[in-house]
Amino acid sequence: MITINDINSAYDRIKSTIHRTPILSSQLIDSFCDTNIFFKCENFQKVGAFKFRGVSNAVSLIDKGKLKYGVATHSSGNHGQAVALAAKLLNIPAYIVMPNNSPIAKINAISDYGGNITFCTPTLAAREEILDDVITNTKANFIHPYNDMNVIAGQGTATIEILNEINDIEVIIVPVGGGGLLSGTSIVAKSINSNIKVFGAEPTGADDAYRSLRSGYVQINEITNTICDGLRTSLGNNTFEIISKYVDDILLVEDEWTIKAMRLIWERMKIVVEPSASITLGAIMKYREMFKKKRLGVILTGGNLDLTKLPF
Amino acid sequence: MITINDINSAYDRIKSTIHRTPILSSQLIDSFCDTNIFFKCENFQKVGAFKFRGVSNAVSLIDKGKLKYGVATHSSGNHGQAVALAAKLLNIPAYIVMPNNSPIAKINAISDYGGNITFCTPTLAAREEILDDVITNTKANFIHPYNDMNVIAGQGTATIEILNEINDIEVIIVPVGGGGLLSGTSIVAKSINSNIKVFGAEPTGADDAYRSLRSGYVQINEITNTICDGLRTSLGNNTFEIISKYVDDILLVEDEWTIKAMRLIWERMKIVVEPSASITLGAIMKYREMFKKKRLGVILTGGNLDLTKLPF
Repeated sequence: MITINDINSAYDRIKSTIHRTPILSSQLIDSFCDTNIFFKCENFQKVGAFKFRGVSNAVSLIDKGKLKYGVATHSSGNHGQAVALAAKLLNIPAYIVMPNNSPIAKINAISDYGGNITFCTPTLAAREEILDDVITNTKANFIHPYNDMNVIAGQGTATIEILNEINDIEVIIVPVGGGGLLSGTSIVAKSINSNIKVFGAEPTGADDAYRSLRSGYVQINEITNTICDGLRTSLGNNTFEIISKYVDDILLVEDEWTIKAMRLIWERMKIVVEPSASITLGAIMKYREMFKKKRLGVILTGGNLDLTKLPF
Repeated sequence: MITINDINSAYDRIKSTIHRTPILSSQLIDSFCDTNIFFKCENFQKVGAFKFRGVSNAVSLIDKGKLKYGVATHSSGNHGQAVALAAKLLNIPAYIVMPNNSPIAKINAISDYGGNITFCTPTLAAREEILDDVITNTKANFIHPYNDMNVIAGQGTATIEILNEINDIEVIIVPVGGGGLLSGTSIVAKSINSNIKVFGAEPTGADDAYRSLRSGYVQINEITNTICDGLRTSLGNNTFEIISKYVDDILLVEDEWTIKAMRLIWERMKIVVEPSASITLGAIMKYREMFKKKRLGVILTGGNLDLTKLPF
């Protein structure tokens, strides 16, 4: 298992490549929720999502002799964009397997970065099968979207920036899909101050992490039903182990809360965030009493979505 | 006529009340337009628009004995919000006359700040007639949305911040409706460096400033046809005089350019801007050759709009 030292090393490795994103607050949202929320705006990160952190770290650790074969992954979108951009910057090929229900904006962005896309049905089994074929044919280096320790270390760097910049954070909430961000976040937060509570926010329509933590082994989402297209994946064995050890709990959030939160962020903060990012504020609104008067760190994970298909 | 000294004084007066808004750039938009654009994000200003600058300055200069009667104005929205918030902070009443085709988000925001709204038909004559009645009945202090020298001085402070922060700006482009922002902007820019070119971006469907500069006297928009709801008003005598003296030209922009620009800003910069703010990038896209390779300052004037009625 990786430690805070690995994440500090990752930060040294990638900090000149990534954007140091701003941390914003909204007086109106704070007064509405009776809290003090510090929003880490990874929607302003390169490719519009935190995923560029993990990929930047993983790519920089690939063996130089194997780099020429390029990189490959499966992704509902933001991780795929990150892999495509990282490959473009190194002038190597990128092969991306995407579920056929991915948002068009994410598909277009990967194409714009020069990524080679193969579509699959939206299940983990289909993703992995198609990806195996691609890797066999190309010898490309697989960058797993969340179960790769180098990716997890990169994702943790966002929380290093939060805790360096904001004092006395009591709670950190991040979305959980495959669990890479939640894993990196929890290692950093608990290592720096074990009193910080760390929560994952998960859609009720893709509640594998919630069920996994309670049952003690990795549960799969057979089907998913949520607007949070980035959170449909299930935990991996590595992220499950880290989350089991460090995370205080998983908060289930109905899409109705997420949509209300998303609208509030757009209207009051004037920033574009996707549903998968808005679920954290949805959790704060739903579990209001838990977070009353607290100083909360929240990662707004991305801002990539079809502007023609807003849920309001 | 006011000078740079009045605008510097206004800045000293209001700088602790307003937000110092960030200046953002987008590599993708720069590469797309072959320019170097510095976007002053007044969509992040209090009330979501630059208008709070001018109102803050004007309100702070009202005679103390008359302040208790409150403030009144006519506005398509953002100026009204600014007056309502300024009044709320001083615990005095605000009376706002609004065109009956104003966006619901702007109407709701004024109500939320406790402003008293009276609706009118969307013509300058109707606005002024209804407002006269309101002022006669209440003795409230009129804060003109653009023709008031104290308001103009406040609006100019955004350009003080741009030129303090960014070196070697060659061109500044701002939207023009009633001309308050363009007046303040042009006085500051030309006083600090007379080589800086200053342009107003104006919708073809509300082209009074364009016609006014060419004819030599104030022209009125009898009817307007544009998505830029904040730019339907015509110049006042004061803004006409200042703009005639200092502004290099008015650039007419079709709504199609504005909508393309707005989408580009939302998708690539991940920020929420209204059509009236996006017209400046629309002008850069339309008049591409004029601005090639230039260092451009652009004020993104506001981010208030109905999210349920996007033009894309």
